[in-house]
Amino acid sequence: MDFFDAVNKRRSVRKFSKTKVPESVIRKCLKASVLAPNSSNLQPWEFYWARDKEKKDKIIEACFSQNAAKTAQEIVIAVARIDTWKRNRDLIIEHYKKHDKLIPIVDKYYNKVIPYAYLHDRFGITGFIKRLVFIFLNIIGYFRPMIRGPIYKHQIFETVTKTTALACQNFMMGLVSEGFDSCPMEGFDEKRVKKILNLNWQCKVVMIFGIGKAAENGVYSDRFRIDDELVIKEI
Amino acid sequence: MDFFDAVNKRRSVRKFSKTKVPESVIRKCLKASVLAPNSSNLQPWEFYWARDKEKKDKIIEACFSQNAAKTAQEIVIAVARIDTWKRNRDLIIEHYKKHDKLIPIVDKYYNKVIPYAYLHDRFGITGFIKRLVFIFLNIIGYFRPMIRGPIYKHQIFETVTKTTALACQNFMMGLVSEGFDSCPMEGFDEKRVKKILNLNWQCKVVMIFGIGKAAENGVYSDRFRIDDELVIKEI
Repeated sequence: MDFFDAVNKRRSVRKFSKTKVPESVIRKCLKASVLAPNSSNLQPWEFYWARDKEKKDKIIEACFSQNAAKTAQEIVIAVARIDTWKRNRDLIIEHYKKHDKLIPIVDKYYNKVIPYAYLHDRFGITGFIKRLVFIFLNIIGYFRPMIRGPIYKHQIFETVTKTTALACQNFMMGLVSEGFDSCPMEGFDEKRVKKILNLNWQCKVVMIFGIGKAAENGVYSDRFRIDDELVIKEI
Repeated sequence: MDFFDAVNKRRSVRKFSKTKVPESVIRKCLKASVLAPNSSNLQPWEFYWARDKEKKDKIIEACFSQNAAKTAQEIVIAVARIDTWKRNRDLIIEHYKKHDKLIPIVDKYYNKVIPYAYLHDRFGITGFIKRLVFIFLNIIGYFRPMIRGPIYKHQIFETVTKTTALACQNFMMGLVSEGFDSCPMEGFDEKRVKKILNLNWQCKVVMIFGIGKAAENGVYSDRFRIDDELVIKEI
């Protein structure tokens, strides 16, 4: 399907029909997700496809049993992590080395800049120390452009969440292109979802997708967007 | 262009050719951006298209004059805001009323839940108070699924940033579908960018796009993704 047709066709569906979603569709769309651009190519995302009936039911319950979850044929959970950067960084470096392309600037970026950017601990101590360093950088920043973060753990989470959202949009557009629908849910009990998925404190549940084909009354209202002039500005 | 072809074709381009991008392409892609799904339909995004030469040059400088900015034919800045929810909420309610669809659950959601979710102040005082309420909710959460946030200002920022990223991905895919390329940049001096765009503390610069057609050596390396098995999990 043409991309712009798919954009127009995509709606958040709150109630799905009984039509099954072929496995191959979910797989194809998940593969398209992880081809999204992402921060430093560190691919800090994870996608959990809840196939086990018991797990799926638990996830539905953690989504407050809302229709978009309850009637979904398939459920996929998008997760962003701040703890996989090291593993993925090592794989990236290995790839560069294999192709003889680990030039000094890339080497320095992945071995010096990234470890500092992703430095964090559970209690925010490193965040506090990084803040002190950034006070110094902010002084330089008066005179020339300067990087301003990430400093705190929540800023690293913001980076990985943002990147994972790019992949999420690919996932939803893929589904529409294949003739299926989705609902990206943010209303869920994150604590419970993390427990079901066995995720640690370095993980963030970004969104949960209900997937299927829209039921007849599956879209609750007409599409409403505020005027473009309010949000698209030429300066 | 077919969506999956576009996904495969899209690469982050670091060096653009001298080919101009028609105005209509940027407009079409920005319009596709704001059709992305978004949190509570509050559309907390803004897209700034830097057309003024002086402003564009300043943005390039704030992007550390990296090639992806310096050689870009066009530059667009994606911004997420935590202060437009009220205006947009009012427009949504007006729309519902006009179509006689402001049912009680929607009314309550936009007039009670959303104002509380978006409640924030510059210094984090409301965040502290909300935390206390959520301690109580967390106790209930032992017994049944419970919403866990947003509590702090940075969590509201995370919500709007996540939503804006969905729109950003539409923007990039739109450009590819129209035969153009982009580079989503996160390396910029946010303080300076905000000053150039005259943005307040309730705004977050999500990413900056360099846009054009790839130069011959515009993609710096082959595409590398870690094994799907590491990030796509069936449970």
